[in-house]
Amino acid sequence: MNLDLEKTAPSEHLYLKVYQYYRELIQKGQLPPGTKMPSLRKCAAELCLSRTTVENAYLQLAADGYIISRPQSGYFVTERSQKPQVLKKEQTPKALSCRYDLASSGVDRESFHFDVWRRYIKSALRQSQRLLSYGEPQGEADFRQTLCEYIRDRRNILCTADDIVVGAGVQSLLHILCPLIRDKKSVSFPNPSFLQGSTVFADYGFSVHYRDKDCGVIYVSPAHMTKWGEIMPVSRRLELIRYASQHNGLIIEDDFENEFVYLQKPTPSLYSLCQGQGVVYIGSFSRLLLPSIRISFMVLPAELKDAYKEKASAYNQTASKAEQIALCQFIRDGHLAAQTRRLKRLYSQKLRQLVEDVQKVFGETGSIQIGSAGTSIALTLSSRHPAREILSQAEQEGLRLQLLKEEEGMVTFLLSCSSMPAEDFLPALSLLRDILARED
Amino acid sequence: MNLDLEKTAPSEHLYLKVYQYYRELIQKGQLPPGTKMPSLRKCAAELCLSRTTVENAYLQLAADGYIISRPQSGYFVTERSQKPQVLKKEQTPKALSCRYDLASSGVDRESFHFDVWRRYIKSALRQSQRLLSYGEPQGEADFRQTLCEYIRDRRNILCTADDIVVGAGVQSLLHILCPLIRDKKSVSFPNPSFLQGSTVFADYGFSVHYRDKDCGVIYVSPAHMTKWGEIMPVSRRLELIRYASQHNGLIIEDDFENEFVYLQKPTPSLYSLCQGQGVVYIGSFSRLLLPSIRISFMVLPAELKDAYKEKASAYNQTASKAEQIALCQFIRDGHLAAQTRRLKRLYSQKLRQLVEDVQKVFGETGSIQIGSAGTSIALTLSSRHPAREILSQAEQEGLRLQLLKEEEGMVTFLLSCSSMPAEDFLPALSLLRDILARED
Repeated sequence: MNLDLEKTAPSEHLYLKVYQYYRELIQKGQLPPGTKMPSLRKCAAELCLSRTTVENAYLQLAADGYIISRPQSGYFVTERSQKPQVLKKEQTPKALSCRYDLASSGVDRESFHFDVWRRYIKSALRQSQRLLSYGEPQGEADFRQTLCEYIRDRRNILCTADDIVVGAGVQSLLHILCPLIRDKKSVSFPNPSFLQGSTVFADYGFSVHYRDKDCGVIYVSPAHMTKWGEIMPVSRRLELIRYASQHNGLIIEDDFENEFVYLQKPTPSLYSLCQGQGVVYIGSFSRLLLPSIRISFMVLPAELKDAYKEKASAYNQTASKAEQIALCQFIRDGHLAAQTRRLKRLYSQKLRQLVEDVQKVFGETGSIQIGSAGTSIALTLSSRHPAREILSQAEQEGLRLQLLKEEEGMVTFLLSCSSMPAEDFLPALSLLRDILARED
Repeated sequence: MNLDLEKTAPSEHLYLKVYQYYRELIQKGQLPPGTKMPSLRKCAAELCLSRTTVENAYLQLAADGYIISRPQSGYFVTERSQKPQVLKKEQTPKALSCRYDLASSGVDRESFHFDVWRRYIKSALRQSQRLLSYGEPQGEADFRQTLCEYIRDRRNILCTADDIVVGAGVQSLLHILCPLIRDKKSVSFPNPSFLQGSTVFADYGFSVHYRDKDCGVIYVSPAHMTKWGEIMPVSRRLELIRYASQHNGLIIEDDFENEFVYLQKPTPSLYSLCQGQGVVYIGSFSRLLLPSIRISFMVLPAELKDAYKEKASAYNQTASKAEQIALCQFIRDGHLAAQTRRLKRLYSQKLRQLVEDVQKVFGETGSIQIGSAGTSIALTLSSRHPAREILSQAEQEGLRLQLLKEEEGMVTFLLSCSSMPAEDFLPALSLLRDILARED
């Protein structure tokens, strides 16, 4: 087995190399469907790597559908793995080939008032003088001021516009942040599913870990601890803050989907719980507006601000100036608050509807996991067929599913309610039941 | 002197640390105006650094106006340095306080047909279905296809849409490219002025050099080898390609301002000269459209494509989807070609006008450096006053200048014609002459 590990610096993403190595073998058919993967212990010994590193690679392969875990058996190559996920020529647009998309994390098509947003973009585009020059590296000053007031009102975060840095998405922010905190060396994520996050940290030489509170950087999404919307309780938040503070760890609080907390009082942000000491707060608008609007922002703690200021002019702003100007005024005129209220109401209704329809269709045979937040639930069902056959059959009949887990005879899907219209839940779930019930 | 150099990895940007150290001393007044800086040799010896590293730091300090070089004397702290360049609260917009801006590299306000661009953005914003989902990580497929045809026609670059990666500006592209070519370890720029480029490479652990063809990566802008638009002759391009190929060096060709080559036949791109072997081609639209539209693209050579594909889905697209859709159609409908022709005509006229007006105002007393391309000229004049006084006086009277160099009694300014209206050249230059002529 040649993984060129000699060329991999200790701090680079070893698990990613293992992952890529096996993915290639699987895609090329050298590990055919049904093949049993080497045990974690054996693979680790052979590669002289830790069991954790190999396990992380296997977890990622499983998350991407290449292998499946059968407890007391091991990991096996799936059939679905034969179709690589990379861009294919003349790819049929999803909308035509997919009738029911329970896997998409897009937004509800009724939720976004395009006409209102268009007005604000048109208004921004009329500011010719402003658009003739480059944007401010840190983000437009008036927009940062608006963001400052917005997070003060919503999340009790007290800071100044000067503490805020704008970027075109979370990764753009990490591209500024990672070089500033390189001395932290290691980062911990809750699980391997946020590949966009772990990849950037690994690119800058951080070692990537999971659920390891002793890392230099702890990356959390407190309103999205699991894909089905479990949130981090306040007690746990305080514990994390205390521990990180004692061990000089930096917390990155990614407040993804904090707007969609339904079943309890709003939860205080980590940043507000410790007055911004040792916490970088990250917010974005892709779940509130459109995923195609690329604007995120971070609030830097005092201890990182000077270092940022020294380098600030070396980094060009990536977010569109016109979109910043538009969003600034959109927020000031109250439309973001109205949009957030509308979406929260809509998604909580849709989630309730989804749970009802699951109970209607599956009754006692399905068990549901649901959190206090978000737009998805996890549904576990028994299946006489392997998951790969279910997914394949479903895809052929226009039903897209996301598999979370497969254990002996039980399959767990992540069902997302945000994108699909509510009236499609029942027919989609009925189709799933029918596929599961088939004899062949 | 404590620069914490122990904490700086050998491959990090040592010159930047030296630069920041002195800049802070100057800004805090601990090195008052007129102070003589330590000689390069002495500073290098004291810091145990190479003379080149110290020189690069001094060059950057000089480029930013903090110090000035007097040959046979040394470097001295300028008076202008008392006003730090960082963001100030309630910063007066340049347009109000500055009558004549000869330093700006913005675009001519008459050059951009906002009404046409607005039509295309509005059209893009009506594509609701497309905007409800995330953009393709690599960039929108139709846009990449359009770019592919565009560079084939303009630059004789033969590639497929699949070889093209879109990003929100050059740095976003480097954030994808640098991790792919980490094994190259070192990068060479023509000079320290492209701070945005060298900073990103240094962030990823590359050692940064200048004019060193033995580096693993050679970053060049063949149509912009100097700030006054000297271009790299074809013979030199072939020589560079041959040398890099023999030494396994990767060339990054940043085709900045290739559209504004006036005085000779169009120059072949490096990429086309070697059929894309060992060259990454980078193009952008900030000089053709608006600097506030953040869209750039790169063409990956075959040898980097597989490595990119493996990681492609881990990087979210930073460029605005709506702007990609708009620009795609804008190009297809011929507006970019029309815009380019118009700008080339306009800028070549303005450059000619600027040169004429310089000769009118300064006659034999000024010597001009002009290249075959671009939007700027270098003007060297004799001055009885130090440059810092000239700059300061000029700023007070609403004239913004960019100083390139100062040698005993001679000052060199970079005069940019792109932003300022042509009718303002004569009064601006006359004002400069008057300031230079003053007795006190």
